[in-house]
Amino acid sequence: MKINGQPYRSIWRDGATVRVIDQRWLPHELRIVALPDRAAFAAAIRDMWVRGAPLIGATAAYGMAVQMAADPSDASLAETWDVLHATRPTAINLRWALDRMRARLAPLPAAARAAAAMAEADAIADEDVALNRSIGAHGLPLLREIAARKGRVNVLTHCNAGWPATVDWGTATSAVYQAHEAGIDLHVWVDETRPRNQGAQITAWELNAHGVPHTLITDNAGGHLMQRGQVDIVIVGTDRTTARGDVCNKIGTYLKALAARANGVPFYVALPSPTIDWRVTDGLAEIPIEDRSAAEVTHVQGLLPGGGVVQVRIAPEGTGAANPAFDVTPAALVTGLITERGICPATAEGLRAMFPDLAG
Amino acid sequence: MKINGQPYRSIWRDGATVRVIDQRWLPHELRIVALPDRAAFAAAIRDMWVRGAPLIGATAAYGMAVQMAADPSDASLAETWDVLHATRPTAINLRWALDRMRARLAPLPAAARAAAAMAEADAIADEDVALNRSIGAHGLPLLREIAARKGRVNVLTHCNAGWPATVDWGTATSAVYQAHEAGIDLHVWVDETRPRNQGAQITAWELNAHGVPHTLITDNAGGHLMQRGQVDIVIVGTDRTTARGDVCNKIGTYLKALAARANGVPFYVALPSPTIDWRVTDGLAEIPIEDRSAAEVTHVQGLLPGGGVVQVRIAPEGTGAANPAFDVTPAALVTGLITERGICPATAEGLRAMFPDLAG
Repeated sequence: MKINGQPYRSIWRDGATVRVIDQRWLPHELRIVALPDRAAFAAAIRDMWVRGAPLIGATAAYGMAVQMAADPSDASLAETWDVLHATRPTAINLRWALDRMRARLAPLPAAARAAAAMAEADAIADEDVALNRSIGAHGLPLLREIAARKGRVNVLTHCNAGWPATVDWGTATSAVYQAHEAGIDLHVWVDETRPRNQGAQITAWELNAHGVPHTLITDNAGGHLMQRGQVDIVIVGTDRTTARGDVCNKIGTYLKALAARANGVPFYVALPSPTIDWRVTDGLAEIPIEDRSAAEVTHVQGLLPGGGVVQVRIAPEGTGAANPAFDVTPAALVTGLITERGICPATAEGLRAMFPDLAG
Repeated sequence: MKINGQPYRSIWRDGATVRVIDQRWLPHELRIVALPDRAAFAAAIRDMWVRGAPLIGATAAYGMAVQMAADPSDASLAETWDVLHATRPTAINLRWALDRMRARLAPLPAAARAAAAMAEADAIADEDVALNRSIGAHGLPLLREIAARKGRVNVLTHCNAGWPATVDWGTATSAVYQAHEAGIDLHVWVDETRPRNQGAQITAWELNAHGVPHTLITDNAGGHLMQRGQVDIVIVGTDRTTARGDVCNKIGTYLKALAARANGVPFYVALPSPTIDWRVTDGLAEIPIEDRSAAEVTHVQGLLPGGGVVQVRIAPEGTGAANPAFDVTPAALVTGLITERGICPATAEGLRAMFPDLAG
């Protein structure tokens, strides 16, 4: 999407030079960095210069392409798979992208690998863009219908399922950008999304940079806004969706789903089909929730008045913190799943009917 | 309650010297300050060295007492009412305390006012302590019953309805302290309570200082913990309760009430009867919600690694924020109201039966 009028992706190349936004400095600084070699790609993934499953996958693919230009040998190919996979070993999309690159490159003679690798990385990036554009195209009529009825659409979103988490468009934000481009009068309530504040730091930044009207709120405020009729639709992303439509997403999503249900606000989840885990049905019973560092709760990152990004402590010394990173929203609270093929009910039947080729 | 083993109130006197905790520095520093004259009392209320309706009332009462020792004239009495009332003109308890002091002092000869004023301020403080102790005594059996059944009690609370908001005991925390003193195995989940982080800054601090086991969580985490059976009871305070039991409390309370209801967790509200507004029935329709400064959302206060409390910005420049400070939890979501006379249902009938002398 756009940054001050200029179109951007979250990863792109000029000839052989691949660049990304070092997202650790958002929203305070837009740092664009070139990734010259495998070590730089590994650092970018490991140290979260880039984040979001699709972007991590694309970054790994380009990392392998850059390494193939330097050394296209079998040993280099094997080692690069290992080095890049080790950066975030639990990221499913990372492994998927590396496997796809290896499957494409391994049969080729070494001399043909560099060009083929760059083309395959481009394909992975372009396919992600097309996938997300498609999700947005299917979500757009929801926003258009509300705008036709009410004149204006107020969307609420949680965390960041925006373009910087993907190669472009984002998942939850894709319909928002398409509605904005279509001239629909639209406004987004952005949950700040403690503890890591991805809403305040990324979602607010990208909407601001693109020019989409939005307002930052605390995670506490959404229920009140829904009670007062100030939210027309909730659209969030998901890290993992079960075969019956339970949604595992950033901590706090469940509270918004409860409030949406209590106040008659439609609650949609935008997702590319690869995030559906067809082996899992009961999200609450079967999905383990990652407990992250207490320091994310006791400390907050921000910009000093005189400049400079620091971590400040908000809790007393001696107070411990718990930090479950995700929660599970039961399918019964989800109005619909917005996928690249269309919108389906959050039920086993709905998902099977939409993805008969993928469902077990 | 206690700070490192020593008993404290939030306001106290040695002879003629009145002291308070300057709460702006919590949890990072315990600054105890003497308030030598009326100007110091006015600053303490206006600049929020002290906060919480009961403590504000007691501080105003002591402020008038200290001024009566300096100048007990009619002009001084009238002027002091005006000066102290102007510090936070919308605080109902402030006005109540000043009116009570004036009613006690105005009929007396000037020479008798200083002693009577100090005695009346002491009475206001002591009555608040007794009121809160009583609320806790009525809440204690709830915690005792859970402990008897499950061995341990996990309480969740939102914002700060603790002893530093009152003269002692707090409202929501009173039963917690009494259960802890009674040897009940108890643990408190403390919502950090964005935007002002009163949970992280005050509730966590006071529980830590007294030695009550507790864990800080983001406001997003409570629903997940309830889904997983890790919360046995929610107890919160209230700024205003309607005649039918709707509860206006810190923003985000409503989301916890929804999650409690969805997961079968009892949701109690602790309140002294003066916070019941008998003229108001429908909280959603009738209670206006204060919109506070956007800067509270876009900025966070914390301690630098090298010491020093600062405000850091977490949002991009150009992003606006909305900051509704309270929300209304409909009575239907409230399991019971814990008052100084006992626990009653959050219904018009329940409240009328408990307070026949107060209800209209």
